[in-house]
Amino acid sequence: MSGMNFGSDNVTGTAPEILEAIVAANRGRVASYGEDEISHRLDGLFSQVFEREVAVVPVATGTAANALALSVMTPVYGAIYCHEEAHIYLEECGAPELFSGGAKLVPLPGAGARIEIAALERSVGMVPPGFVHMMPPAAVSLTQATESGTLYDLDRVRAVSALCRRHGMGLHMDGARFGNAVASLGCSPAEASWKLGVDVLSFGATKNGAMAAEAVVLFDPARKEELLYRRKRTGHLWSKMRFIAAQLEAYLADDLWLRNARHANRMGVMLGDGLAAIDGVTLAHAVEVNEVFALMPEALIGALEAEGVGLHRWATSAAPMARLVTAFDTMEEDVCGAIDAARRHAGRAE
Amino acid sequence: MSGMNFGSDNVTGTAPEILEAIVAANRGRVASYGEDEISHRLDGLFSQVFEREVAVVPVATGTAANALALSVMTPVYGAIYCHEEAHIYLEECGAPELFSGGAKLVPLPGAGARIEIAALERSVGMVPPGFVHMMPPAAVSLTQATESGTLYDLDRVRAVSALCRRHGMGLHMDGARFGNAVASLGCSPAEASWKLGVDVLSFGATKNGAMAAEAVVLFDPARKEELLYRRKRTGHLWSKMRFIAAQLEAYLADDLWLRNARHANRMGVMLGDGLAAIDGVTLAHAVEVNEVFALMPEALIGALEAEGVGLHRWATSAAPMARLVTAFDTMEEDVCGAIDAARRHAGRAE
Amino acid sequence: MSGMNFGSDNVTGTAPEILEAIVAANRGRVASYGEDEISHRLDGLFSQVFEREVAVVPVATGTAANALALSVMTPVYGAIYCHEEAHIYLEECGAPELFSGGAKLVPLPGAGARIEIAALERSVGMVPPGFVHMMPPAAVSLTQATESGTLYDLDRVRAVSALCRRHGMGLHMDGARFGNAVASLGCSPAEASWKLGVDVLSFGATKNGAMAAEAVVLFDPARKEELLYRRKRTGHLWSKMRFIAAQLEAYLADDLWLRNARHANRMGVMLGDGLAAIDGVTLAHAVEVNEVFALMPEALIGALEAEGVGLHRWATSAAPMARLVTAFDTMEEDVCGAIDAARRHAGRAE
Amino acid sequence: MSGMNFGSDNVTGTAPEILEAIVAANRGRVASYGEDEISHRLDGLFSQVFEREVAVVPVATGTAANALALSVMTPVYGAIYCHEEAHIYLEECGAPELFSGGAKLVPLPGAGARIEIAALERSVGMVPPGFVHMMPPAAVSLTQATESGTLYDLDRVRAVSALCRRHGMGLHMDGARFGNAVASLGCSPAEASWKLGVDVLSFGATKNGAMAAEAVVLFDPARKEELLYRRKRTGHLWSKMRFIAAQLEAYLADDLWLRNARHANRMGVMLGDGLAAIDGVTLAHAVEVNEVFALMPEALIGALEAEGVGLHRWATSAAPMARLVTAFDTMEEDVCGAIDAARRHAGRAE
Repeated sequence: MSGMNFGSDNVTGTAPEILEAIVAANRGRVASYGEDEISHRLDGLFSQVFEREVAVVPVATGTAANALALSVMTPVYGAIYCHEEAHIYLEECGAPELFSGGAKLVPLPGAGARIEIAALERSVGMVPPGFVHMMPPAAVSLTQATESGTLYDLDRVRAVSALCRRHGMGLHMDGARFGNAVASLGCSPAEASWKLGVDVLSFGATKNGAMAAEAVVLFDPARKEELLYRRKRTGHLWSKMRFIAAQLEAYLADDLWLRNARHANRMGVMLGDGLAAIDGVTLAHAVEVNEVFALMPEALIGALEAEGVGLHRWATSAAPMARLVTAFDTMEEDVCGAIDAARRHAGRAE
Repeated sequence: MSGMNFGSDNVTGTAPEILEAIVAANRGRVASYGEDEISHRLDGLFSQVFEREVAVVPVATGTAANALALSVMTPVYGAIYCHEEAHIYLEECGAPELFSGGAKLVPLPGAGARIEIAALERSVGMVPPGFVHMMPPAAVSLTQATESGTLYDLDRVRAVSALCRRHGMGLHMDGARFGNAVASLGCSPAEASWKLGVDVLSFGATKNGAMAAEAVVLFDPARKEELLYRRKRTGHLWSKMRFIAAQLEAYLADDLWLRNARHANRMGVMLGDGLAAIDGVTLAHAVEVNEVFALMPEALIGALEAEGVGLHRWATSAAPMARLVTAFDTMEEDVCGAIDAARRHAGRAE
Repeated sequence: MSGMNFGSDNVTGTAPEILEAIVAANRGRVASYGEDEISHRLDGLFSQVFEREVAVVPVATGTAANALALSVMTPVYGAIYCHEEAHIYLEECGAPELFSGGAKLVPLPGAGARIEIAALERSVGMVPPGFVHMMPPAAVSLTQATESGTLYDLDRVRAVSALCRRHGMGLHMDGARFGNAVASLGCSPAEASWKLGVDVLSFGATKNGAMAAEAVVLFDPARKEELLYRRKRTGHLWSKMRFIAAQLEAYLADDLWLRNARHANRMGVMLGDGLAAIDGVTLAHAVEVNEVFALMPEALIGALEAEGVGLHRWATSAAPMARLVTAFDTMEEDVCGAIDAARRHAGRAE
Repeated sequence: MSGMNFGSDNVTGTAPEILEAIVAANRGRVASYGEDEISHRLDGLFSQVFEREVAVVPVATGTAANALALSVMTPVYGAIYCHEEAHIYLEECGAPELFSGGAKLVPLPGAGARIEIAALERSVGMVPPGFVHMMPPAAVSLTQATESGTLYDLDRVRAVSALCRRHGMGLHMDGARFGNAVASLGCSPAEASWKLGVDVLSFGATKNGAMAAEAVVLFDPARKEELLYRRKRTGHLWSKMRFIAAQLEAYLADDLWLRNARHANRMGVMLGDGLAAIDGVTLAHAVEVNEVFALMPEALIGALEAEGVGLHRWATSAAPMARLVTAFDTMEEDVCGAIDAARRHAGRAE
């Protein structure tokens, strides 16, 4: 079922350009722990991509990126607001709390896995300044694209950012699928991040073609030293750091990250359109990036799986729902194959 | 200076067999988060190598391996005894304390970076059972080979292990250079670990040819589930886990790990012998694995560096001392080159 | 406004019997750190009160009691379910997370500050066993009496307890007002706790007449040693421990705790009835213990305050709401005074 | 043996002036959580005593005071240097590490439980700036008077303080026996603390007459808000805070703290002189405050205990050693009684 495995975008391997960069980086003996030349180039490369000076701290996993990013945005007794379905809240086994030294993630509701601004306002507003019984608001974390494969439009991020400023909070963006988001929004990386008021970005690469590479992007480079200590004390500083750096360099080169993302998004839309046209299948959300959330009969989900279509049953949904994710290397024929299988089985089921 | 860079064994790249395994693992779409086939084979492979059932939890860095290993061996208020020059004590920026939730590392003296057993006995003996003011003894951590490139002989490990049993403590072994140790001791992996009473082993691969791969080996497999949760909450579970697993599989295949280690050790001894024969150079320790600690005049250290011989100045030494480390890919000609350079400059200095 | 200060039950001083016990305990030099005779008597005294062998760990604050109690009920990566208005969730500034080493408090809805069992079932059911991305269910914490001055009836506690057993979770009870709850329920302390399946109880005394004394009651005494270490490492072991022990001894003697609680409850009901009879005032909940939650016009709240009636504005309420709390030493005349003031001002407002 | 119990200065009860203040504070209903009038007076009172503006955060135990004090002086990955026999290192079960979120206490040698400055210099000097593998130097903690009942003279504190400034470290003073130290040094509280460069002081009262009261004194009041949050999240904010505040107010009033300390010191010197005059008894240190460390034959220690002289066997000593501590309420006749007993038994032993 390899090609039709839409279980996640992390069932993929490494994009060829990135694998080549890893192999190329293998030559010679170089300084360890990030003192190699490729690592030294990263701040500059990301600064170009983001059109301003940034500092970058690379790590191997998204959980590490998020938990480290948040750890420099909150006192140990601070509150971090996020969506109740956010990865940091639900699926990182408490890493943000551990790395921050005790901060609390406050879950908020909102359709399409987007934080409802009124709920955020209410929750933050409940905490009187200096009232030591309650953890003071420290940061908001938005996931872009969201856990439901939807997007925050720029105005909504701006509104959250304004609220953050009013309350002295920082703004974090979990960009595990930042490439897909930027590709879909059609704006620049800068317009999707710091120009909206984002302070720290978890810039994902693994889901979009890297082997194991993410970057914490600090729009305030002064926080870098603290983050370097924190990366080391959590075991996320590689001795052979060049092998993460090489992935990120190749990922940025010639806009590979955007090209990969555009392809994945296009496949996502095709898959979504195809499924939505089938009787008995409804999309839970418009497909804005590379994820399709399809409500369909349990029997149909089972039949697809039996035919080798990999998917993920969405546990938090009341009605049976399958998530199908496309990726940088998804082939059109596999998308068609999955749609075709769904059509056939849906027909039979009737 | 690439070939003559003896600064550490982590200035090396990835061994070809391991790089090939990574490339080979890239094929197809496979289950993520360690549910792939290669990952599933690891417990079995390590069980063969260690001649008993073990459970294995792979991670990308030695600091993560050590800190996670220790975290399942102590209550949050426990004391872990180690050498005062141990990596876990001096060079992991507090990762063991963080991952354990607050355990204290108690530093002990001892020549050659080996814990002095009388000091251990005294330190543990000072703590009355149930005396809540003092953190109760939970574990001992030995580094094999040590930070000084020396070895604990098996009898000394046995003595420490017996002491651990008497006091209800677990025994951890930091085996960042476990391959070099086993190769030099000439015993089996089992004889160097659980047969001596080691409970948990940090089995290193990165310094000996891997890109980024270490394994926590649990000789009591019942602790595995807890460790899996802890790995996730510290961000050390890769989504594309196959890429660590493939490294470890290749590392064990055909005894690559021991072949690499034997070569590195042989180069180490050659380098040590060559340097020791030079007037004005003295070895601080016999070369038992792949590390040479050479006391030499400051001027000579500088001259070597100027000529492109990479080395590490040992900060904790009173007299000027250079550490030179050989590796799986060190070439004999580079060892000879370094010795020759030292001989030339030592002569001039006279 | 001293007598009419209904702001909380912790605006009170120390009950005379307890203050006398403190003074009496002052005689002589005695062993420190809980090795004195009064401290040694506590396990026995509480075992009598609870009609079974229990172990008791006294501390000075409710936050410490709750956070320590929970810390022995969860792994560092465990989830603790509680009401979204629970003190441990909202008003302890992250103490449970800190003392547990990273556990997550999962907030649940429910009318009257009582956990809705279906929501609990759903939330726990979402977490697949052994799924390391999500923090595994470790414990449920019920507040008895609740933050809204309501009670869980015994059947509801039993239902929660059964759910806990099914999912391998422990059951904690935050009994900051346990005396008021038992007095109102009309059952025995045993019937209100371990006979329902409660594993660990935070047994409050401070709000009900003590100066600074709470007890963590372990229905499984085997957990005591761990808790003693944890108490010390959080700075909650007093050197002159006799002064907490003496408070608890006096609190239990001759059922002082129940007599105080009954009085406070009676005053609470009187105050509630009086206010409810006034036009424009509605009680948000029936008064089941010593707390009155009265919805009333903002102008009336202000007028009461101006006349010296101490109360607490309830921040999380949409409509203006005042909380008034009676205590062990509340005088009937002050209750009448407050009702009278409300009646007068309500009349004027019309 | 009550009167001759020299086991510690915390076997004592509460000084009468302080007990009276507690009883007096019991009147009326007052704002809770430190918003009462007595609590509000503390900053001013301490500012007078220390001749500058200070901020004060009261807690009930010395462990809490130290651990909280240190927590605002270090990043979570910082190193705190202290003597290897310091209470914070040996006898607080890891509280400083927990409250700081992971800082490491680095133990240093030194005669008389005073840090040897050369060792401190060496240890701090080993850590290269920005070298993320090692925890960066954050603070030094001195115990005044020390664990051995000795004093740092002002010049030595000044030297440590100068070293702190050079390396960007803060200076903490554990003043569990600060009163005894100031009384013996014959200087002002200011001269013994901030005028020497101390940044944060744990100002002890419990050992010197309070029931359970210590104060963290911040010479930089700007840190107070952070400390208030930290106090709450560790469960050390009392609801009936007036009862700690009243103790501290009485402790400072009319120099009770210095009068108590002077008496305890005088009794200590008398006891030390008496014991030192006995054949076979040697003092390990000159008696500088209220603690006597007497080397004497095991048989003599046993005989004293048998006759009702309370003492503490010093576990870390090679030769048998008893610690005897005098206190604010030690009676001259009991000191004479202990000396007399020692004289009689020493004679017999010969």
